Amino acid sequence: MINVYLDHVLPQADSHPVPIYRAMRYSLFAGGKRIRPALVLMTAETLAGDPEELRAVAAAVEMIHTYSLIHDDLPSMDNDDFRRGNPTNHRVFGEAVAILAGDALLTAGLKLLSDAAYSAEIRCTLISQLTRAIGTEGMIGGQVLDILSESKVIDRVELEMLHGMKTASLIAFCAVAPAIVLQQGKDIESALGQYGEAIGLAFQIVDDILDVEGTTQSLGKTAGKDSKAHKATYPSLIGLPESKSLAADLIQSAILSIAPFDQRGYLTSFAKYILERKQ
Amino acid sequence: MINVYLDHVLPQADSHPVPIYRAMRYSLFAGGKRIRPALVLMTAETLAGDPEELRAVAAAVEMIHTYSLIHDDLPSMDNDDFRRGNPTNHRVFGEAVAILAGDALLTAGLKLLSDAAYSAEIRCTLISQLTRAIGTEGMIGGQVLDILSESKVIDRVELEMLHGMKTASLIAFCAVAPAIVLQQGKDIESALGQYGEAIGLAFQIVDDILDVEGTTQSLGKTAGKDSKAHKATYPSLIGLPESKSLAADLIQSAILSIAPFDQRGYLTSFAKYILERKQ
Repeated sequence: MINVYLDHVLPQADSHPVPIYRAMRYSLFAGGKRIRPALVLMTAETLAGDPEELRAVAAAVEMIHTYSLIHDDLPSMDNDDFRRGNPTNHRVFGEAVAILAGDALLTAGLKLLSDAAYSAEIRCTLISQLTRAIGTEGMIGGQVLDILSESKVIDRVELEMLHGMKTASLIAFCAVAPAIVLQQGKDIESALGQYGEAIGLAFQIVDDILDVEGTTQSLGKTAGKDSKAHKATYPSLIGLPESKSLAADLIQSAILSIAPFDQRGYLTSFAKYILERKQ
Repeated sequence: MINVYLDHVLPQADSHPVPIYRAMRYSLFAGGKRIRPALVLMTAETLAGDPEELRAVAAAVEMIHTYSLIHDDLPSMDNDDFRRGNPTNHRVFGEAVAILAGDALLTAGLKLLSDAAYSAEIRCTLISQLTRAIGTEGMIGGQVLDILSESKVIDRVELEMLHGMKTASLIAFCAVAPAIVLQQGKDIESALGQYGEAIGLAFQIVDDILDVEGTTQSLGKTAGKDSKAHKATYPSLIGLPESKSLAADLIQSAILSIAPFDQRGYLTSFAKYILERKQ
């Protein structure tokens, strides 16, 4: 459903007048797991809403996630040649177009929300909370800390802040946004926020673990990059076994926060998937 | 007024937890002419509105303009070392932080609008129109064409499209936004849109002329870059005298479109300033 919708909202690759759509589509349809849109839609169903109604949010979040990947992969950032098994955007289209494709996906994602079929009040709340989640207090701030962590030693508290900002804040938005659209009230929003923060942090810890234990082939991106770049990771700071038990604890606490209304068990299953994923 | 407000909405340079605010502030307070905010505020006064009411729009537009300058100056784009007489953002903070500072200014500019003290309906209209003006059909699309124009010959029609998208669309938004906030109706919006498009295109033609006639010192950026980069410009395509007369014609038509309601003459003076500016 999300792939069809993304294909629908984004102009065709060769459409007039600018060839940037090809670069945007290249990364948007590069086989991403669609974890964030899936979380949006499953949360909508959990709240007895129609997932179709959350389509615009799910698509916007995936466009913005893709923008962050394109920029993170750039030579001046993580300098990654592969992503999801394919050459990274700048390897195919050059750095200039890759930067602009990222800019364009961010812009288009927010535009999608401003034009969505929700009340204007809800659209503004979504844009305000999303831009907070992906701004200097969220995703961008986390990426800055990530870059700085390559040249200085950071401790566990700083690492948790880094991942909380870089990864968990957008994932938390995915869990909270359906409650905003479906007007579920502050208590449900807050429980979903806790759930999202916890699985978001666990997601990143599992990512760190996979970077140690996975292979480039199973990951679709270069394995072992973190230790080569001298990046602080959970395994490097607290060891593999404790990283695994921390991720499991986070998933447990995430499941607890949504237990009262997760009758269908979707969000519980989703949290377990985050812990068990191999790529 | 705009400088005070920008200083107020942006966290201090050394504020916790991420040092990116220093990079954002560096470019935002680098002595820009504030042409776009000035246009927003003058249009508000022309429509008998309180300029203070348009502060958020003016600040958002300047933040977004600054983001576009930071990204345009990057080594993979125009590779500029100087801007407004100072080293460009990436020369001071490195490419990675410069890219993120641009991303953050774009995000923060749109967040400012989503949180502004207008009705939710007006906030959504502003965000929708602004993201269109700066997206693939506007500013970003123009920048893509600009990059491509370095490696292929473009004609006058294509050059007008390039500048219309890259420069005029955001300037047109500056003229239209006050009419949206002050609810002046479609006719006024449309007249201001024509005015903005015309002065925006004239602004770019004058920029091209200054790049030929100005000095690096008077411009605060490297002069003669366009011809060195084999960029198509108005002077290179139609010659200096015809470029000057085209700019003058555009300013004349801009003045005509707002004549019926420009009693105070602000917008007329502003259009003339665009034509006569020397930097």
